Amino acid sequence: MKVLPGDQATVSASAEEDFQSAEVWDKVSGKTVYGIDLRLPGMLAGKILRSPHAHARIKSIDITGALKLPGVRAVLTGADMKQKPYGIVVKDELPLAVDTVRYIGDEVAAVAAVDEETARRAVEAIRVEYEPLAAVYDPEEALQAGAPQLHGDFPGNLAWERLLERGDVAKGFAEADVVVEETFTTRAINHAYLEPISCIASVDSYQGLTLYTALQSPHIVRNLLAETLDLPPSRVRIVGPAMGGGFGGRVFGNLKVYLLSALLAMRTGAPVKIRLTREEEFIAGRPMVPVIFKVKMGVRRDGTITARESDILVDNGAYSAQGPWVAKTISERNDSLYRIPHIRTRVRLAYTNKVPTGQLRAYGNQTANYAYETLLDMAARKLGMDPLELRLKNCVGPGDITVHGLEIKSCNLAQCFKTAAAAVGWDQKKPGRGYGISGAIHANGSVVAHKDFRGAAAVVRLEEDGKFTIFTGEQDYGQGTHAVFAQIAARVLNVSPQDITVCSKDTAVIPYSQGAFAMRQTTIGGHAVRLAAEDLKQKMAGLAAELLGAEAELSGGVFRTPDGAELPLPEIAYHWRCRHNGLAMTGEGNYNPPGSAYDSTGYGNIAVTYSFAAHAAEVEVDPQTGALTIHKIVAVHDSGKIINYTASLGQVFGGVTQGLGYSCFEGYLFDGGQVLNPNFATYQLPTALDVPPIEPLFIDSEDPEGPFGAKGLGEIVQVPLLGALSCAVADAIGAPVTSLPMTAEKIYWAAAGKECLE
Amino acid sequence: MKVLPGDQATVSASAEEDFQSAEVWDKVSGKTVYGIDLRLPGMLAGKILRSPHAHARIKSIDITGALKLPGVRAVLTGADMKQKPYGIVVKDELPLAVDTVRYIGDEVAAVAAVDEETARRAVEAIRVEYEPLAAVYDPEEALQAGAPQLHGDFPGNLAWERLLERGDVAKGFAEADVVVEETFTTRAINHAYLEPISCIASVDSYQGLTLYTALQSPHIVRNLLAETLDLPPSRVRIVGPAMGGGFGGRVFGNLKVYLLSALLAMRTGAPVKIRLTREEEFIAGRPMVPVIFKVKMGVRRDGTITARESDILVDNGAYSAQGPWVAKTISERNDSLYRIPHIRTRVRLAYTNKVPTGQLRAYGNQTANYAYETLLDMAARKLGMDPLELRLKNCVGPGDITVHGLEIKSCNLAQCFKTAAAAVGWDQKKPGRGYGISGAIHANGSVVAHKDFRGAAAVVRLEEDGKFTIFTGEQDYGQGTHAVFAQIAARVLNVSPQDITVCSKDTAVIPYSQGAFAMRQTTIGGHAVRLAAEDLKQKMAGLAAELLGAEAELSGGVFRTPDGAELPLPEIAYHWRCRHNGLAMTGEGNYNPPGSAYDSTGYGNIAVTYSFAAHAAEVEVDPQTGALTIHKIVAVHDSGKIINYTASLGQVFGGVTQGLGYSCFEGYLFDGGQVLNPNFATYQLPTALDVPPIEPLFIDSEDPEGPFGAKGLGEIVQVPLLGALSCAVADAIGAPVTSLPMTAEKIYWAAAGKECLE
Repeated sequence: MKVLPGDQATVSASAEEDFQSAEVWDKVSGKTVYGIDLRLPGMLAGKILRSPHAHARIKSIDITGALKLPGVRAVLTGADMKQKPYGIVVKDELPLAVDTVRYIGDEVAAVAAVDEETARRAVEAIRVEYEPLAAVYDPEEALQAGAPQLHGDFPGNLAWERLLERGDVAKGFAEADVVVEETFTTRAINHAYLEPISCIASVDSYQGLTLYTALQSPHIVRNLLAETLDLPPSRVRIVGPAMGGGFGGRVFGNLKVYLLSALLAMRTGAPVKIRLTREEEFIAGRPMVPVIFKVKMGVRRDGTITARESDILVDNGAYSAQGPWVAKTISERNDSLYRIPHIRTRVRLAYTNKVPTGQLRAYGNQTANYAYETLLDMAARKLGMDPLELRLKNCVGPGDITVHGLEIKSCNLAQCFKTAAAAVGWDQKKPGRGYGISGAIHANGSVVAHKDFRGAAAVVRLEEDGKFTIFTGEQDYGQGTHAVFAQIAARVLNVSPQDITVCSKDTAVIPYSQGAFAMRQTTIGGHAVRLAAEDLKQKMAGLAAELLGAEAELSGGVFRTPDGAELPLPEIAYHWRCRHNGLAMTGEGNYNPPGSAYDSTGYGNIAVTYSFAAHAAEVEVDPQTGALTIHKIVAVHDSGKIINYTASLGQVFGGVTQGLGYSCFEGYLFDGGQVLNPNFATYQLPTALDVPPIEPLFIDSEDPEGPFGAKGLGEIVQVPLLGALSCAVADAIGAPVTSLPMTAEKIYWAAAGKECLE
Repeated sequence: MKVLPGDQATVSASAEEDFQSAEVWDKVSGKTVYGIDLRLPGMLAGKILRSPHAHARIKSIDITGALKLPGVRAVLTGADMKQKPYGIVVKDELPLAVDTVRYIGDEVAAVAAVDEETARRAVEAIRVEYEPLAAVYDPEEALQAGAPQLHGDFPGNLAWERLLERGDVAKGFAEADVVVEETFTTRAINHAYLEPISCIASVDSYQGLTLYTALQSPHIVRNLLAETLDLPPSRVRIVGPAMGGGFGGRVFGNLKVYLLSALLAMRTGAPVKIRLTREEEFIAGRPMVPVIFKVKMGVRRDGTITARESDILVDNGAYSAQGPWVAKTISERNDSLYRIPHIRTRVRLAYTNKVPTGQLRAYGNQTANYAYETLLDMAARKLGMDPLELRLKNCVGPGDITVHGLEIKSCNLAQCFKTAAAAVGWDQKKPGRGYGISGAIHANGSVVAHKDFRGAAAVVRLEEDGKFTIFTGEQDYGQGTHAVFAQIAARVLNVSPQDITVCSKDTAVIPYSQGAFAMRQTTIGGHAVRLAAEDLKQKMAGLAAELLGAEAELSGGVFRTPDGAELPLPEIAYHWRCRHNGLAMTGEGNYNPPGSAYDSTGYGNIAVTYSFAAHAAEVEVDPQTGALTIHKIVAVHDSGKIINYTASLGQVFGGVTQGLGYSCFEGYLFDGGQVLNPNFATYQLPTALDVPPIEPLFIDSEDPEGPFGAKGLGEIVQVPLLGALSCAVADAIGAPVTSLPMTAEKIYWAAAGKECLE
């Protein structure tokens, strides 16, 4: 088993190849055009009036003052439109609030004007009379009898719940020698992408709608918007400029922004651009859900985990967004990391009068990692067992079918643990320092997410100059999908990736696709690209054999027969185009990943394959202040064969740093329903100076289903970091910090055995 | 034989259908975005320094003053770049002049600056030292020994020449009873599209070039630019906004503008927009060539034409552009209108120190029509024969192979003549009025234009909502190609054209195509669309039969079995996409029109089919002033089955009006090499008040090759008008006006039998 770096086990021909693309250089040289920079001729500026109340009845809205302002073209309110409820999982939102507002930031009216300043003044000129209602901010209080109610369709403020039972937890706990339990809490965290969401909506005379906005899943959003706006899906086109960061926040992006810019464009007939301010991103985005974990685990003296019981309460905020899906992942994914025979998990999602929440990179698997891995170390301490040994004793391996039905094929989890431990110096621990290690499993795509379109498709076109274009609906938003797809096709076609362009940004052109989430780009999208390139290669070889009169091999852009006759690719292209009067030669590939949907109990092998990882941390805590110094992070990944080593390093450095923010820096602060830190001055992100030494290592494995053996990496990079850091801190101070972020103050009081009042 | 209007022999379901498209309504409501309105983030403005001399040596160029201006980003001169000669037919141009300028307007330097005003000031700050050279402005003088020479590669200023001989003209003239001869001259005329040409060029970090500019033939221009800029063709992408008029002037557009904006973008790294002023359009566009026709014809007493001899001199201006191709059409197309056994035509193209010329709608067939049809009426007068009878005696008909090899299949030329004569009141001529009639033949596409890609291709995609998208490289620039293609596909697919979107504006997406010229859109492009729709229909029917368990008929968007089982199109689309993991169902069509290239003598059946027309005019001349009143124009067309009657009316009204401008209003005026009327204030276009009553009539014919029997119309609409008007004026005053435009002054002096000094 080799470990990268140090060998050349990547798929790419060279490290230089990894970042040789115009896209990369455009970014670093400032050429890239992001949505926020775009303008259309005759474009209006849109602005949104938001509720100042966490919960209130709207008694009246007076827009006459706004309409009188010169330059104002339209003022929309919920009452003056036919609105359809919409939502990603449940339809609990309207484009504009009618009657009731449910959080501070709720969209009440929208304005289009000739410029942003006029639109802002128009928003200020709208007079709304509210009747404040009792509000609830705490998810536990929200579920109690007598709490203020947010949605009539969801009595008791219960947005979603599930009880997941495998085996017999009572039996499991009876078999345990040691039982540990704890309550962990996490905060809402923001995606904090550098470019706030913007959208230009443009309508033609037949209400054909074009949106210029960057999305991770443009087709899925297109369908959702078409349904909400009562338009045929093919009349909604989404064109994506470059994306200034996504991290899951742009899978669905900000649907209100798209809907309101579209509605303003339909009303005015002119293109309308809405761009969120940073404050709006914080107060009306869809940050990662806050969670309360009450967890309990039984372990035998030999380290065998016998049972785990969890009561998980997820704070949904005022509307659901992806809440139910995130709650599902949080409540089940970590169960498949270790062999746990008896599991009982109740998860509830509660409405509160706060910012509606969503998901962030890894869908809460990292959040659960924090809770469960910290709990595991509590068990190790109680058993007097090495936490690494405890993990190796229980971790899943190849051939396992996990407790929820995941079928583990390629899996080097144990090697990840061992490699991480060796690299962090697990056997030569330094005195005064704390060490933590944590593992992770994460799905590559999900056959249940959009069941009828679980796969991916790609078209590869031979250009007349012998270069190639890949058409795919999968999205590059900085993670390197385009580079990876070019490398996959280049390997099939035996050319340089520089000769391959990837086209993915326009729903009118690309194959229908799920887009970029759940680590499906490389494994599933890349598989389709490989098949398309192989299809094209076969077609080219057929024509080459016909024209050369003998079978020929493709190398360096030229087909050669054993006799030395040659036919370069441009001639293949030219012959085909002449024969077909302008149609280019194309190869098609589409890939349907194996896997099975959940059964009624939530059991099923929901992904084609799974990626694994182990992170280890070496930390030091200042006993006087609780200040944390992170001496080293080791991040070991089993993501199959690495295709683009440079981009993979980028994922690891970025994911670890984002996980560091989640663990130690970030978190929404509320006063009731009011966000107290809605900007980068007060919401603490780790800066370059906060980033510890990170050692990224890749296990040289090969997945039978992944293209050239590759598996996903983009989400799992963050998952084990949370557990590793938390375990390292607990190791340093002898007690867990039971809420995120682990600030110095919390660490200090945890070390002192006292609760830290937030 | 039916004549439209009055019956419903069009292919479209209703007149309402013809203009029901978002594109049409976007135009009339001002929503359409033209290139001139576009901006990209960070865009610079480009401006061109032009020669003030008709012919001069460049001694030095000092750009230091320009470079010092704040906001100037680049100043390009020919000397500081590696330049490749380029040209459409012959490579006689460079992006920027080196050493020599050859006309007033020749491009000497190009500037990119932060805004247009700064760019303009920078252009003014460039100091060029010229050494004036002797210049030649008259094409006859240019060909004389000792004339100033423009291009070393073309001694004697002869850009191109051809002697075309069929039969034996000496024998033909010997058989003639009457011989007529005359010299006719025409002026350069401007396309006068409302939107001047503009182009934004943007380069990525790997010199991938994207141009935002509207072109009739984007792929052909793309290849030409790629070759000139030493880029692989697939790295040059042309994206077309809506086009504010083309009329042939945007087949190749203004190559200098594209090259210079690209070179400035490459130099600066920023997007650069050059937009021509109206004056630049006049002095540095590629207006229609001026021509001198010396023509002679022999006719028997019974009206049989026995021979025709022509000496045609075409003024090429300083560079060739499409000059040779236009000269070719001028010198041969009209020969195939009548049965002329003996023909001898010498055509020469001469360089002069004036605006380089090109072609305009119909490639000079209309110019020749003026000369030859006027000459025909001179023969009729000399014979004392009815000009209509003379034409009917000689005109070609179905089954003919013309003197140059054109194979006439569907042809209603005689019916066009008779219908036009009847409608203009040929048999009840009013006293004091002049009557003229003229015919035309025009090719539908040309197999010789770009011989390897003579056909067209299309892809029709089934959208998931049961609507359709056509991908085509053929271009709609206002003439209605999109509407016609939607109607063709709609008829095959049995849906409304409103359910069909046409995508044609992006070379990265569309099939390779020749584009919009030579009346090839409907006949050739439309044929490919029909085939693609039929291919798709067959695929849909196959899946429907499989899913329904029985053969089913498609009607109104639903497949129905004889038993009444139904499957709507969205379900077909959905099943296909699920089976193919996101790939849509598509139909492909490609069409290779029959025809044969020219042989070495210029003989060949160069088009799949030919359109025919006859126009008739009723005019009155004020004997005191020569002022012309046009009482009526009848325009009768055999364009096969009419697909979109409304768009066809638009073509006739527009083409006749443009022909009226050519005949009676327009024309470049020069003082030496200086254009005297380079704007709409001094260059006279006909206005709405100048347009006479026009009666458009369509012969209800059907071409075996055209889609649903259709043939082309867009160019021929202008052709016979020139002859008809000239003949009517000659009929009114008893003598021909031998130069265009036929101003009142010229008519007055022609009536007086004297030459009019221009």
